[in-house]
Amino acid sequence: MVAGELGPCSATLDRPVPTVASFSGRPHPLLVHRNKSGCRVSAASQQTRRVRAATVQAQVASAEAPAIPKPGTLPPKIVNVDLGDRSYPIYIGEALLNDAEIVSRHVQGSQILVVTNTTVAPLYLESFVKGLREQGAFKVESVILPDGEEHKSLQVLQQVWDKALESRLDRKATFVALGGGVIGDMTGFAAAAYQRGASFIQVPTTVMAMVDSSVGGKTGVNHPLGKNMIGAFYQPRCVLADMETLKSLPDRELASGISEIVKYGLIFDPELFNWLEENVEKLLNRDSKAMMHAIDRSCAIKADIVALDEREGGVRATLNLGHTFGHAIEAAQGYGVWLHGEAVAAGMVMAADMSFRLGWIEPEICKRTVELLKRAKQPITPPKGMTAEQFRSFMSVDKKVQDGKLRLVLLRGPLGNCTVTGDFDPQILEDTISAFVAHEGISGSSDLPNTQ
Amino acid sequence: MVAGELGPCSATLDRPVPTVASFSGRPHPLLVHRNKSGCRVSAASQQTRRVRAATVQAQVASAEAPAIPKPGTLPPKIVNVDLGDRSYPIYIGEALLNDAEIVSRHVQGSQILVVTNTTVAPLYLESFVKGLREQGAFKVESVILPDGEEHKSLQVLQQVWDKALESRLDRKATFVALGGGVIGDMTGFAAAAYQRGASFIQVPTTVMAMVDSSVGGKTGVNHPLGKNMIGAFYQPRCVLADMETLKSLPDRELASGISEIVKYGLIFDPELFNWLEENVEKLLNRDSKAMMHAIDRSCAIKADIVALDEREGGVRATLNLGHTFGHAIEAAQGYGVWLHGEAVAAGMVMAADMSFRLGWIEPEICKRTVELLKRAKQPITPPKGMTAEQFRSFMSVDKKVQDGKLRLVLLRGPLGNCTVTGDFDPQILEDTISAFVAHEGISGSSDLPNTQ
Ligand SMILES: NC(=O)c1ccc[n+]([C@@H]2O[C@H](COP(=O)([O-])OP(=O)(O)OC[C@H]3O[C@@H](n4cnc5c(N)ncnc54)[C@H](O)[C@@H]3O)[C@@H](O)[C@H]2O)c1
Ligand SMILES: NC(=O)c1ccc[n+]([C@@H]2O[C@H](COP(=O)([O-])OP(=O)(O)OC[C@H]3O[C@@H](n4cnc5c(N)ncnc54)[C@H](O)[C@@H]3O)[C@@H](O)[C@H]2O)c1
Ligand SMILES: [Zn+2]
Ligand SMILES: [Zn+2]
Repeated sequence: MVAGELGPCSATLDRPVPTVASFSGRPHPLLVHRNKSGCRVSAASQQTRRVRAATVQAQVASAEAPAIPKPGTLPPKIVNVDLGDRSYPIYIGEALLNDAEIVSRHVQGSQILVVTNTTVAPLYLESFVKGLREQGAFKVESVILPDGEEHKSLQVLQQVWDKALESRLDRKATFVALGGGVIGDMTGFAAAAYQRGASFIQVPTTVMAMVDSSVGGKTGVNHPLGKNMIGAFYQPRCVLADMETLKSLPDRELASGISEIVKYGLIFDPELFNWLEENVEKLLNRDSKAMMHAIDRSCAIKADIVALDEREGGVRATLNLGHTFGHAIEAAQGYGVWLHGEAVAAGMVMAADMSFRLGWIEPEICKRTVELLKRAKQPITPPKGMTAEQFRSFMSVDKKVQDGKLRLVLLRGPLGNCTVTGDFDPQILEDTISAFVAHEGISGSSDLPNTQ
Repeated sequence: MVAGELGPCSATLDRPVPTVASFSGRPHPLLVHRNKSGCRVSAASQQTRRVRAATVQAQVASAEAPAIPKPGTLPPKIVNVDLGDRSYPIYIGEALLNDAEIVSRHVQGSQILVVTNTTVAPLYLESFVKGLREQGAFKVESVILPDGEEHKSLQVLQQVWDKALESRLDRKATFVALGGGVIGDMTGFAAAAYQRGASFIQVPTTVMAMVDSSVGGKTGVNHPLGKNMIGAFYQPRCVLADMETLKSLPDRELASGISEIVKYGLIFDPELFNWLEENVEKLLNRDSKAMMHAIDRSCAIKADIVALDEREGGVRATLNLGHTFGHAIEAAQGYGVWLHGEAVAAGMVMAADMSFRLGWIEPEICKRTVELLKRAKQPITPPKGMTAEQFRSFMSVDKKVQDGKLRLVLLRGPLGNCTVTGDFDPQILEDTISAFVAHEGISGSSDLPNTQ
């Protein structure tokens, strides 16, 4: 380990390739002028961001949101995603789902199509629709899709468009996604392409969807040759994250969402990582207050990164830490065997391992990552039987490939720092893959993935 | 006829509905502040526009385009579509298809996927691809779709994505549409949704595609319940209209494209309308010089309207003159029986008839429209056997319906003026429909549509 190479500001930019990006807990001077959308031109420090979040919350309490939280509930937090005229709020609270007033505030026309699935519908659809209908003159329709990543396809998406057209929805209609990331991604793309752009609201009901998929406007479906290959960048009008809905979430789904929270800690926020090391069991126990904190921090980090780089020309790619390895794992097994967060967990361990082999991070970070993910009940190695050839083959069709060069998000520097780069010795990637398919893992551990 | 009602500036705005728009040959003062995209805030007069077009052409001759046109060919015209950082040029000329240098100037990455169909491929694909390959280090793939509006579907679109993924194209790849409007619309949407947005170039090979579908970024496919219901607004990086390709176009296809040129005259440009009355036979005879003039004027008009209102919040809707009636005709027969331009021709006659019945235009305009369209070999009544009930039913799922109210583009005032409005006596619409399904037509004519 060549720790001496790493200074405190070791985040690097690979100059020759214009889309390279780097992101660290501290504002990186080179991030200035990197924003193509023209919305913001410098990365706010964590300090500023914390202050901004607080301000938004205060404003809301006095103006936008219900001034008095429902008895016995915590006051909602609000994160603003700052994208010019496409900005929108994320409401994080305890009794939001039946507060139809918030949703209806963001509905433009008079027609609503709620898209959900066979698992979520029996739990929440009826009361949600009832609330909306009571709110006013909405015409509310719903469509219930089959549940599962394997149904995140164009074929199933067709059912949403069929329903919309049968219901004679016009282009001012609002599509509401009520469910996890699969429903959110599909509904967003359905809305984006419906008559070239209907409105869209996210009501995420999994941790994964609350901290990641519902924020930032990436929508789409899978193709047999790749995950999320067909889609659009399309922002919702608001996001409503209700802690109540997490009560019914299976343990394994809940835990897998925690991997993405760990990711925010690793790429950007050492304080969040420390907090998780102290509180991860509270999240597993669905403590609302702890959950709201973790979701608030995660959304705030993602919102800021997305505001800097909506279309993933640069820093947004850092959100893919562990995802290139993770997608290979998902693709090799067939979608839906491991959960997304589980694949990402193993992928982050591989990315950390590779970063360590490159001499870019201290072994401590690898160890803490493995320990935290284990406590979050996540796998820390790829599934047994997965081959090096599968990694090679699935990683090369991944979107991180640009003009033939594989680019990866890797950790570099102290906790909370990462880089997106194609500039590494390919042998080191091979070494990491070999170690993990042999189930040696980062720490020589032979733990099998926790897929229950 | 209550001609006294019509002053020279009779274009009207229906105040209660915010998306109402009106457009006339003269800049309408109310158009100022109507632009939502913020690109431009007032409509340029025809005068200005003519001057601007000329300037662009001069600049091009000296800088961008080949300075010396190929021996025996006319110098290319260039129309600029002004959409901020999504602006792009339309090249209109005689020997552009094999001038791979122009295309390659607008290609970003190194991968190109040419999308075409079984009719166009044998005519132009090989030499086009050869030219591109000779240009440089491009990896050029192609996919050949079945020909016909009935194949403008999600199912067929899938073939484009399959090919792109099998060829391992990344998100920097450029999709090139080589063909008519069907190929252009499908390829544009394929590019828009491929990895959430690949690049896109239009090489239109029909009059329809050159004057209309390749300009302005509307892309999409049909759904069994409606035309172009699934799609995106997605701008190409350039458009290449080569007169040579029109030589192989069947007479009926050529003629149907002229309907859209007539449309530009009716909604905006009385001079173009006059010019058509003098030169329509030259167009039917494929006179390159006349064709380039008509295409140049049409593109310039459409480009200006699109620049004012990219997302069809207002004036862009005027481009749908005759289209609501026309779509009903196409839908009632099943797509692909009549050509789009033919349906629009009959639709424009119906729109003119209705405008006359409302007392908004002089009977002269109806008569001139019918005569010009007849000379262009277009139908001027709906197909025999089509019922009033079919019109009613198909017009109400049309996108012009907003929150339940049917809005139509109608002529109002002197030639070159129109309005988009839902504010008319519904009985007048019924009268027009009745007259046309009884084949009385505007002038009591019993002409049957020219569908050969
Ligand atoms: N758009 C993005 O930026 C982005 C980011 C991350 C992940 N994703 C996508 O999100 C998907 C994964 O999301 P996910 O983890 O939410 O999976 P998911 O949507 O499949 O939901 C997980 C399971 O939980 C069920 N469920 C959802 N809410 C429930 C509730 N409240 N109670 C009980 N059961 C409930 C679902 O029906 C499903 O069976 C993947 O397709 C991934 O590609 C997208
Ligand atoms: N996007 C828009 O703004 C817009 C505007 C108008 C029309 N459109 C769409 O465009 C389509 C109609 O376009 P179109 O009229 O070009 O139809 P098309 O694409 O079907 O082409 C007409 C026929 O001509 C053939 N063809 C094309 N080029 C040829 C050539 N050079 N030589 C010989 N044959 C040739 C085609 O294969 C086809 O058989 C419709 O789907 C319509 O919805 C879109
Ligand atoms: Zn993820
Ligand atoms: Zn048309």
